[in-house]
Amino acid sequence: MPNPFEYRDAVLYCEDVELTKIAEQAGTPCYVYSAGAILSRYRAYDDGLAGLPHRVCYAVKANSNLSVLRLLAQAGAGFDIVSGGELYRVLQAGGDPASVVFSGVGKTRAEIDYALEQGIHNFNCESEAEIALISSLATRLGKTASIAIRVNPDVDAATHPYISTGLKEHKFGIDIAEVESVYQRAATLPGISLDGVSCHIGSQLLAAAPLVEAARKLLALVGRLRAAGIAITELDLGGGLGVPYSPADDKPNIAAFLADIRTLVAGAGLFLLFEPGRSIVAEAGALLSRVLYRKKNGEKEFIIIDASMSELIRPALYDAHHEILPLRQSKFGTVKADVVGPVCESGDFLAVDRTVANVLPGDMVAAMTAGAYGFAMASNYNARPRPCEVLVEGATWRIVRTRETYADLTRGE
Amino acid sequence: MPNPFEYRDAVLYCEDVELTKIAEQAGTPCYVYSAGAILSRYRAYDDGLAGLPHRVCYAVKANSNLSVLRLLAQAGAGFDIVSGGELYRVLQAGGDPASVVFSGVGKTRAEIDYALEQGIHNFNCESEAEIALISSLATRLGKTASIAIRVNPDVDAATHPYISTGLKEHKFGIDIAEVESVYQRAATLPGISLDGVSCHIGSQLLAAAPLVEAARKLLALVGRLRAAGIAITELDLGGGLGVPYSPADDKPNIAAFLADIRTLVAGAGLFLLFEPGRSIVAEAGALLSRVLYRKKNGEKEFIIIDASMSELIRPALYDAHHEILPLRQSKFGTVKADVVGPVCESGDFLAVDRTVANVLPGDMVAAMTAGAYGFAMASNYNARPRPCEVLVEGATWRIVRTRETYADLTRGE
Repeated sequence: MPNPFEYRDAVLYCEDVELTKIAEQAGTPCYVYSAGAILSRYRAYDDGLAGLPHRVCYAVKANSNLSVLRLLAQAGAGFDIVSGGELYRVLQAGGDPASVVFSGVGKTRAEIDYALEQGIHNFNCESEAEIALISSLATRLGKTASIAIRVNPDVDAATHPYISTGLKEHKFGIDIAEVESVYQRAATLPGISLDGVSCHIGSQLLAAAPLVEAARKLLALVGRLRAAGIAITELDLGGGLGVPYSPADDKPNIAAFLADIRTLVAGAGLFLLFEPGRSIVAEAGALLSRVLYRKKNGEKEFIIIDASMSELIRPALYDAHHEILPLRQSKFGTVKADVVGPVCESGDFLAVDRTVANVLPGDMVAAMTAGAYGFAMASNYNARPRPCEVLVEGATWRIVRTRETYADLTRGE
Repeated sequence: MPNPFEYRDAVLYCEDVELTKIAEQAGTPCYVYSAGAILSRYRAYDDGLAGLPHRVCYAVKANSNLSVLRLLAQAGAGFDIVSGGELYRVLQAGGDPASVVFSGVGKTRAEIDYALEQGIHNFNCESEAEIALISSLATRLGKTASIAIRVNPDVDAATHPYISTGLKEHKFGIDIAEVESVYQRAATLPGISLDGVSCHIGSQLLAAAPLVEAARKLLALVGRLRAAGIAITELDLGGGLGVPYSPADDKPNIAAFLADIRTLVAGAGLFLLFEPGRSIVAEAGALLSRVLYRKKNGEKEFIIIDASMSELIRPALYDAHHEILPLRQSKFGTVKADVVGPVCESGDFLAVDRTVANVLPGDMVAAMTAGAYGFAMASNYNARPRPCEVLVEGATWRIVRTRETYADLTRGE
């Protein structure tokens, strides 16, 4: 998969745009996304499933900027949402509600009503109580809601505990050992059509094997459900394929993973759904920042930049690794340092004890692989206005979300 | 210190207001703050320092709602800020810029200029490079900036690593062993007046001993600086006193801590500054939420509520404990459960394996001690509009920040 960020004559580009130009004109901190990288990764999924009836539903939670959603909608993507706010975003971006699957353990009445009124494709249901609620709300509206039950296949996804979701002890899905009786009881309810089986075992998986194992378990379940008279027509295998954040990480191969899945599902007569998020947008994005200060405490070197955990919380929350690259390579070599932000806590770091370019105040750096769960998790902590977002297409770029102002901070107070 | 939340006839009140009334009228999730509790804690600091020249500068980052700031400004508080956005908030709330101290390792040029133009009390400086920058910007504006240097006293604050800040390996302050020569060099710079010594060793300290130890080290430093001809007139001991989040936690005593400090500083001829944040607002706040679903996965019970890590990230980020109390006590006993939100990751929990009231869908609960670092760290993750905030004063309450709408989510895109 091509990397949209590369050095040309010691200057870092995103596609055909010099990143320093964006940083100087749009200011820092600033998120930059490559449209080409997003589309190439979406197409890797879509092409990998060519010839099979399928839909690739982009997981909106990874990056819900309207321009990113519009790009994917125009390429033919469907959408995986987890809230009414995400449905609103998809609709604002011109997405087709009929291409939307609604996941999540805590759908409210208002959100279910909104989704029914808009005519989404289906609900991935996480509990019997939720199925009963959807049944009653759909009946009241005179509609039939298409339902898939999210199955917890008890597969160990071997990722960070916060983003592993497929074990019995997690809040997600219904235990595969109990789900057949849940389908049987749900089959008696009005207002719903039991069309699908779904799963999502976790996030940032660097090996496809757990996903393939989950698919195998779900296919066997489909067979048992059909034998019991429940006419399952759809299989949703969720998302979860990871990206290499560090040069040492394995590089998951979307095409190879889908080839394995193709073999498994051949002839099963199922409409396939996938819900990739991170693997579509993470590598397409970077967070640009300017060096404010250098300082030394004892033996420790600190590079203080103008981006922080307010903009990118992943290092603090998940111990996540993001490569830190200079926007211009220099002859000043490297330094072992902590790269930290202005926020007043020790947890505000982007890199710890890392060998990075020996950048000086005024220089600019990029935190790489920041297109997923970056801006989406940004806050106004320390009363910091949220950064702007930029979309690059070839040699052109434009601001797709303006930087917040101080006045934005107090709106509603 | 009085607890503003108490049960009366099995119904939870904040001051003289029934919380269910707020939750029903304002909706959930919703932050509620007790004005009386905030003021009583501010006064405990102010009274504890009576007779000594002093100012209690509330640390805005803990909770920067304009109505909370206004309440404290009217009570005579100063403010400790860490960004231009926080200065903007203080000014919007009617705070006096001359009562503001500006802390933080990453002050930008624009923020320093803004603070100089507004005439803040002083800058707590964290590096030599920052002192040089303030000197040059103040000189250009024809002003003299009052400076305190934040000293890193190498005291172990024994708290969560992310909020401990007083060890050599942290990004904060200047090593006490090196700071005298930094003062000597800074004394030669134009545009600044070296008036203060400051420190802040960490947050959520349940014992005052490390704070007292730091104060002792700083007083000795003041003596050495004065002997070397630097006329220090101010001592800023920062914040850091914690609050009991769990019934098992020690209960730090503000008055007893300040009595120790009084003894230490008697006759030192210093203007004293303190920067408490959490200990003023944490216990004054609660996050109200409604139970959406109950579910069981294997042996595990889950209580799914409509509040999540988007509203309150402390459990996920710091393993923080918040008591979960029902707004109405029932006869249904207790249950051992995970209390989780609708956000799609396993890290989205408010309590894990906790014995809590056996609440059912539709019931309401409060996450207690949520007045600090609650809304201040809230995000729109999963495209969730941020909750409203309510201020209670005696028997009255009012919304002091309206709930965000879907349209708010996409502003600027």
